[in-house]
Amino acid sequence: MELSARFREMELYIKTLQDRICQALEQEDTQRFHEDLWERPEGGGGRTRVLAGRFFEKGGVNISVVHGEMSEAVARQLNTLQAPFAACGISLVVHPRSPRVPTVHMNVRTFETESGACWFGGGVDLTPYYPHPEDFQAFHQTLHQACEAAIPGSYAEYKRWCDEYFTVAHRGEMRGVGGIFFDYLDGNDPRHADLVRRVGDAFLEAYLPIVQRRREELFTEADKQFQLIRRGRYVEFNLVYDRGTLFGLKTNGRIESILMSLPPEVHFRYDWHPDPGSPHEQMQRYYQPQEWLNGMA
Amino acid sequence: MELSARFREMELYIKTLQDRICQALEQEDTQRFHEDLWERPEGGGGRTRVLAGRFFEKGGVNISVVHGEMSEAVARQLNTLQAPFAACGISLVVHPRSPRVPTVHMNVRTFETESGACWFGGGVDLTPYYPHPEDFQAFHQTLHQACEAAIPGSYAEYKRWCDEYFTVAHRGEMRGVGGIFFDYLDGNDPRHADLVRRVGDAFLEAYLPIVQRRREELFTEADKQFQLIRRGRYVEFNLVYDRGTLFGLKTNGRIESILMSLPPEVHFRYDWHPDPGSPHEQMQRYYQPQEWLNGMA
Repeated sequence: MELSARFREMELYIKTLQDRICQALEQEDTQRFHEDLWERPEGGGGRTRVLAGRFFEKGGVNISVVHGEMSEAVARQLNTLQAPFAACGISLVVHPRSPRVPTVHMNVRTFETESGACWFGGGVDLTPYYPHPEDFQAFHQTLHQACEAAIPGSYAEYKRWCDEYFTVAHRGEMRGVGGIFFDYLDGNDPRHADLVRRVGDAFLEAYLPIVQRRREELFTEADKQFQLIRRGRYVEFNLVYDRGTLFGLKTNGRIESILMSLPPEVHFRYDWHPDPGSPHEQMQRYYQPQEWLNGMA
Repeated sequence: MELSARFREMELYIKTLQDRICQALEQEDTQRFHEDLWERPEGGGGRTRVLAGRFFEKGGVNISVVHGEMSEAVARQLNTLQAPFAACGISLVVHPRSPRVPTVHMNVRTFETESGACWFGGGVDLTPYYPHPEDFQAFHQTLHQACEAAIPGSYAEYKRWCDEYFTVAHRGEMRGVGGIFFDYLDGNDPRHADLVRRVGDAFLEAYLPIVQRRREELFTEADKQFQLIRRGRYVEFNLVYDRGTLFGLKTNGRIESILMSLPPEVHFRYDWHPDPGSPHEQMQRYYQPQEWLNGMA
């Protein structure tokens, strides 16, 4: 199929963004990303970069540009006509070693078919393990700016969508403190192409200040325990609910690139609860949807 | 609804079996099981026993006896008429600390509805982390005896069913070395009631000799690493594929009793492979279906 100019621009954008982000994360660590180039038998491929660092215990930044025929099952799941398609996107997850520094996830992607369907999707969300509400507020503030610059009034909608999406439904809680999430945004509306770039660009601006502010904080054994338990909830979300993960696993995607999002070390305890009055009990309350930018549009 | 004599007998059987198994496992450890009694708002409840032991890092033995109305979604999933139902069963998972001692799972259950449907289900499977093929063979041998005593010729069928069921499909491998699995076995055939008891009774006989034979074995750091990685595959199976787990999570089951099956400590590494020529590489080959009882019916 002939790719649109919009698609080509997005492809170029995610490649450059991957470079920028990996460079910036390497600068915070002492280790370098390892790169794997891979091909998809049915068409296209990707560039997976992973870091097993000193500071970032596990980080993965993946781009993929794929194309081919669409199976009937995929067409049904995407609610579109079965037709040749192309998709590209960048997806990253970073799990720092320190429980005082949050886990973060970002993804932007576009999809188009020969029959004319095309859309954008993406999101950014933060999974902290220690109650630093000023960080969560600043994170949302940066995402708010990015959304509003592209589409006035859009932050509130995408923030709510994120609260709903990144929920561990069987626990009745979110996996973190949210951020933004959007999907199936009309690709013919140029504001959406602008949005995904602004969101991609906002990632480092939203996350790095938190890293820099918290990286030297001392932490306790109880902080570490809490992080390991909460990482278990991250696994529960990704394997039970995350559409992208399940879609990839069930359509013969590149398994290692899909599952690079899983935390490096995880604990699962029976009926675990934080100590009453502890910062961890306080943190748990932040895993419910709330307004981070009171008084802002 | 009026419960059948078959159901009452099963209920009594699983209660006694839970006691027998917990007692035997406590005898191998120095710690005792912790017990939680719980009620299901819609009817019935259960008795969850968990062990955070010295030798058994995490063990859970749960029984539940529940009844109530069936939702439309459940009726559809079970492919039965919507009607008042009752179900009871025992389910256990044991994760030893030593990578030389396998993880094990056992479950037997029965289900009946007022409209007359009734069936039995269950299974036992072994997830070892070190190539001790004589153990895997002995384990299968014990299950073979139990199946054949109840229904001649049944082991081969239930063994094949297990090979298919306990598969991490996206990895193209089983979670362990299998065992037996069966479901929707006609409750009106008395051979099936006999089968589930024989399977329940066979559990300790199949597992304890392995524990006793391997518990004092020295292990290496590489053995431990392999165990932690393979426990990750166990998590992948349970959260992505296990029907019982997903059914429980999505029908408001008791979350802690369902997820007690998850290993206590788990590692997820990017694109991890065992060293060529290592016992772990050899072990990986056993995660493909194979005949353990050559020459036996």
